[in-house]
Amino acid sequence: MSANSPSTSATSNRSKLRLAVTVGDVAGVGPELSLTCAADQEVQKRCQPVLIGPGEVIRLNAAKLGLQMPEVVSFRQLDRHRDKESLVVDCGHVPLESFVPGRFSRHTGEASFAAVDFAIRESMAGTFDAIVTGPIQKEAWHLAETGFLGHTELLADRTGTADYCMMLSGKECSTVLATIHQPLADAIESLSVPLITRAIRLAGQAMELRHGRPPRITVLGLNPHAGENGLLSRGEEENLIGPAIQQVQEDCKKHHRAWRITGPVSPDTAFTPAMRGQTDVHVCMYHDQGLIPLKALSFDDAVNVTLGLPIVRTSVDHGTALDLAWKGTASRNSMLSAIAMAIDLCP
Amino acid sequence: MSANSPSTSATSNRSKLRLAVTVGDVAGVGPELSLTCAADQEVQKRCQPVLIGPGEVIRLNAAKLGLQMPEVVSFRQLDRHRDKESLVVDCGHVPLESFVPGRFSRHTGEASFAAVDFAIRESMAGTFDAIVTGPIQKEAWHLAETGFLGHTELLADRTGTADYCMMLSGKECSTVLATIHQPLADAIESLSVPLITRAIRLAGQAMELRHGRPPRITVLGLNPHAGENGLLSRGEEENLIGPAIQQVQEDCKKHHRAWRITGPVSPDTAFTPAMRGQTDVHVCMYHDQGLIPLKALSFDDAVNVTLGLPIVRTSVDHGTALDLAWKGTASRNSMLSAIAMAIDLCP
Repeated sequence: MSANSPSTSATSNRSKLRLAVTVGDVAGVGPELSLTCAADQEVQKRCQPVLIGPGEVIRLNAAKLGLQMPEVVSFRQLDRHRDKESLVVDCGHVPLESFVPGRFSRHTGEASFAAVDFAIRESMAGTFDAIVTGPIQKEAWHLAETGFLGHTELLADRTGTADYCMMLSGKECSTVLATIHQPLADAIESLSVPLITRAIRLAGQAMELRHGRPPRITVLGLNPHAGENGLLSRGEEENLIGPAIQQVQEDCKKHHRAWRITGPVSPDTAFTPAMRGQTDVHVCMYHDQGLIPLKALSFDDAVNVTLGLPIVRTSVDHGTALDLAWKGTASRNSMLSAIAMAIDLCP
Repeated sequence: MSANSPSTSATSNRSKLRLAVTVGDVAGVGPELSLTCAADQEVQKRCQPVLIGPGEVIRLNAAKLGLQMPEVVSFRQLDRHRDKESLVVDCGHVPLESFVPGRFSRHTGEASFAAVDFAIRESMAGTFDAIVTGPIQKEAWHLAETGFLGHTELLADRTGTADYCMMLSGKECSTVLATIHQPLADAIESLSVPLITRAIRLAGQAMELRHGRPPRITVLGLNPHAGENGLLSRGEEENLIGPAIQQVQEDCKKHHRAWRITGPVSPDTAFTPAMRGQTDVHVCMYHDQGLIPLKALSFDDAVNVTLGLPIVRTSVDHGTALDLAWKGTASRNSMLSAIAMAIDLCP
């Protein structure tokens, strides 16, 4: 909870939370989605959304699309505006003379990086109760020489977290990824028992919190048909995934946890309706193993959560959508879900 | 079309087709599904299903589950029974004294192999118009030292086909696989421009036949976010997938084909509802990239088709389901779809 004095809303029986919403790369759809969600009455009832990003560009975006522009304040002024429905904290700079909507640059990368970095620092300090991140362009972070591949790596570094994992959650399923943003061949080579046990543990903890009962976890194999007993594998199911499951199961027994862990199951049958009905969370070995079915099933409402951090962080589950940017046509559903999930996960 | 004189049915304006339905591994659900579908009146209206497998075990299965048992004939007697609604051709032998439902063996592997081998030979000879295959147990083919990994490899060998591909087709999407039953790491290493162009070409030809218009083809990347311009790849999108697409596009231009080929697209967004609406067929780089979304979306009605063969061959899209076998509870929907698709694909 925030260290600042939270105001009590008549429409909520808990103190109003203050959420940092980083607008993402300003070349993309992040600013318009952030502005639309920040103006949403349901959102304003449950929290004070504080958009973090370059104020001038956000104002330009609001003007172009006819969106409501919150008051822009500096960080130091934040506490004076506890009663405002929403705010913008000016952070990062993108020179307007060279800025073109839909085109990311070193500048847009620097600005989106600065906003996330600031939001993390101030969440650790208690200024914000949670962070919701808009979509960044990873190549822009690369151009800006940030030294970080994406949000998750930065969050892990700044919060000093070694044991973290990405969870993608939609209405139809939740998936936790043992490996994430790597070439597929590298992801396979990097798989290890500790990586997989970590994913299973964090998935189980999150689901236990969410559902208030022992979780049902399905762990996927790596290979077609989960390797079909070694016939279609290099032994990853036998040497890595099986032992990881066993390790967590033994751990559960020791601590009298009644987690139900199934696997390694054949990846192609793990997401059938019958299997989804028996599963709270799927632990997947690589990025697309989890994200392909999630996005096929969840339309545009999925949320990205970083598990294992000392702060709450959720994110939209889509990219910058440069071709749609600054047109006012992108769906805000994922960002609305990300805000709702962040509020739900606040202790 | 069969070389034998086909009878004309009053309920159909085309000659009645004769389909070879191999029952698959008798330890699994194949026999009961084959029997149920062969007894289906809609199936019998459109074709004469001829089950191929060990007659004694099929009879035992029918007796145990109270299913209708067609007359068992030897191959030589087949032409005398052109008017029968359905038949069983006795092929392969499984010693009853050692047979246990749900347990595959060298014997069940030998028998299921013999049935498929026979069906292929007789389809090439014109005895059958198409083959529909029930689920085999690949390990049983391995135990039986057949020298073949599965149906597809055997079909390719016996028909002398080098350029073949697997297509999985459900109500929500159709996927063609550039690589199939290999360890995932091997599949990545084996990807090549010829493999990918072949998959695109066969996918396009099948869809052009199916829809009667130029097909819309989506080709997936291999890596997360289709490699994000090399940041998350070993260059497979730039060096293999992109050039393969270009090659087929140039070929189309030369032959005045108006195929629409899109890609390489980010795998995790390729199967969203919007993308599915713009796509007739997805060309996928590895087994689970295509099968995870297909099975997540298509419940139990998907069909497996081998493209590029000189004969028509479709198959159920599920395994032997040993735990469900000989209980009469398995869904016949995939086999019904496989029979319908085989009939549709007959020239």
